[in-house]
Amino acid sequence: QPSDPGKEEEDPWQDEEYFGNYGTLRLHREMLSDRPRTEAYRQVILTNSPHLRGKVVMDLGCGTGIISLFCARLAQPKAVFAVEASSIAEHTKTLVRQNGCEEVVTVFQCRAEELSLPSRVDVLVSEWMGNCLLFEFMVESVLQSRDRWLKEGGMMWPSGATVCLVPCQAGSYYAETMCFWEQLYGLDFTALQPLAQMEFFSRPRFSHLLQPEDCLATPCDVINLDMLSLQVTDLEELNGQFIFAVEKAGMFHGFTSWFRVQFQNLDRDGTTLELDTGPYSEPTHWKQTLFMLDHPVPLVGGETVSGNILLHRNPVWRRHMTITIQWSISSTEDAENCQVQTKSFPMWR
Amino acid sequence: QPSDPGKEEEDPWQDEEYFGNYGTLRLHREMLSDRPRTEAYRQVILTNSPHLRGKVVMDLGCGTGIISLFCARLAQPKAVFAVEASSIAEHTKTLVRQNGCEEVVTVFQCRAEELSLPSRVDVLVSEWMGNCLLFEFMVESVLQSRDRWLKEGGMMWPSGATVCLVPCQAGSYYAETMCFWEQLYGLDFTALQPLAQMEFFSRPRFSHLLQPEDCLATPCDVINLDMLSLQVTDLEELNGQFIFAVEKAGMFHGFTSWFRVQFQNLDRDGTTLELDTGPYSEPTHWKQTLFMLDHPVPLVGGETVSGNILLHRNPVWRRHMTITIQWSISSTEDAENCQVQTKSFPMWR
Ligand SMILES: [Ca+2]
Ligand SMILES: [Ca+2]
Repeated sequence: QPSDPGKEEEDPWQDEEYFGNYGTLRLHREMLSDRPRTEAYRQVILTNSPHLRGKVVMDLGCGTGIISLFCARLAQPKAVFAVEASSIAEHTKTLVRQNGCEEVVTVFQCRAEELSLPSRVDVLVSEWMGNCLLFEFMVESVLQSRDRWLKEGGMMWPSGATVCLVPCQAGSYYAETMCFWEQLYGLDFTALQPLAQMEFFSRPRFSHLLQPEDCLATPCDVINLDMLSLQVTDLEELNGQFIFAVEKAGMFHGFTSWFRVQFQNLDRDGTTLELDTGPYSEPTHWKQTLFMLDHPVPLVGGETVSGNILLHRNPVWRRHMTITIQWSISSTEDAENCQVQTKSFPMWR
Repeated sequence: QPSDPGKEEEDPWQDEEYFGNYGTLRLHREMLSDRPRTEAYRQVILTNSPHLRGKVVMDLGCGTGIISLFCARLAQPKAVFAVEASSIAEHTKTLVRQNGCEEVVTVFQCRAEELSLPSRVDVLVSEWMGNCLLFEFMVESVLQSRDRWLKEGGMMWPSGATVCLVPCQAGSYYAETMCFWEQLYGLDFTALQPLAQMEFFSRPRFSHLLQPEDCLATPCDVINLDMLSLQVTDLEELNGQFIFAVEKAGMFHGFTSWFRVQFQNLDRDGTTLELDTGPYSEPTHWKQTLFMLDHPVPLVGGETVSGNILLHRNPVWRRHMTITIQWSISSTEDAENCQVQTKSFPMWR
């Protein structure tokens, strides 16, 4: 029976698009240019180098192989299995050879699900994080690989991950998306403002660089994930709570989110390293993610903004999720008037 | 007979994508923020205002209607027909009303080809220019509308268009695309340079901002179009010649292209206005378009770079073209050694 020609068979994982992008150098250049990210992994390898001796490491989604090469160059692992599904993998093999690491590093060009390794591994290292930590859900492949390939008592890098949130000002973004549509060349363009709100505020804004002075409160850790115990089914719905004490007067334009990841030391007494993609650290290629309210709320300082955030994975489009933020503002002046607001942000479908 | 479900029926004009984009505010904001572009049209209306009195004007692809509103506010035309195919048109109607121009300006939400107007027009104004002047080939709709709706002896704005070219340096682009893949974190990444050449140099680079000091010669007008006599069939292949006298020593990384458009005055004695999107003028949202050679050539100054440029419209994908540049470098020192080189740049397919 012929299928309906008008109805495309679309892949809910959109793998062709996803891995297609990672076959281009543009993305790899962006990741390699990101010093805080790349140096964090380099430091993890370097710091753990004594304990990596003779160990088997898996580098999932290795890209150009930078982490695998760090392992081979900065430590003496027995073997590194570098796994990459996109077409960059062919070039990664050349890079491994040209850097004299072919004795230690083996590149497997396949999807994690199709992987067949010669042995289990002691360490599973991966740079799987996306916008708001989870976007694109590469983490699912990491968890499946952990369950299939990581030895009992093995290590995950990152070993933990945290989603952070802060209520914030976003004055210049508000100006360029909303105030823009006022007077232009002597004409009244305000008729387009409802359209602007729809277009610019209904989805999160990726690549937002939050200025520390635009934070209206001390950021809050809203979700904590332990990479050794996290289950794939946990990813369907992740919930977090927040209570922010507003520290200064300002315009409450929205919330900004980012993440931190932790790298536990192989030596139980060693220090845990951390990569922080927030506004108080050097910017990374993830920058931060901005969630705009429909209308800004002036705050005088002293209010409490409390509520919760829900990351709800799209049941069809498996790389997407919707983030719902529920919040209320209570002021000491007017403790009665404390309306609960909700806004849902598809990311991306 | 059912069609092959694997073979999508794709629109060679990609109208859904094309008009879909113009339904978003992001693009309109970019165009309205472009002062040199918008002010050029405003000046044309203002300068011609005495002769626009009682005239009928058609504004093709009016977008938010800015040019039509300029006509209604700055002159006294009998009528302005504002034509827009994308969904922004519904909002354009509101803008026209809110600016009190509904007596003069009528918005037609349809494609140029489906247009039915109450009368012919005295002036056809349109902002149809794309990258390298022709990309996206909106100009075809303009020419068809001219043949169908412009009165005998009517005016086209722009009335003429010129494609410009210059041999240039592009040191920082070369550094970030090619030199980037050398030493990274103490590792050798040169294996990726052939891939980088493919990815970054095989298509033109849009939105390049050419610095005047990176021009190696005086720019050349390579193609001139007269908008009153130009035929749709002329667009299939447009050819231009160039001879550049290299004025200084530098690295010849490629060619940069841009355009100028002219606006003839309705008064035969009036001055022609011009919008110049080149490196010696204030940058516009088009910026310039860079064509990288596969390998840079060091020049000492005094050489001649001569050749030709061919804009070949894609016979299938009607909004696309391939630009082929053929050139040779002859030096007074070594007049014998004058090899002809050719490179073709798909734009976009
Ligand atoms: Ca990533
Ligand atoms: Ca245009």
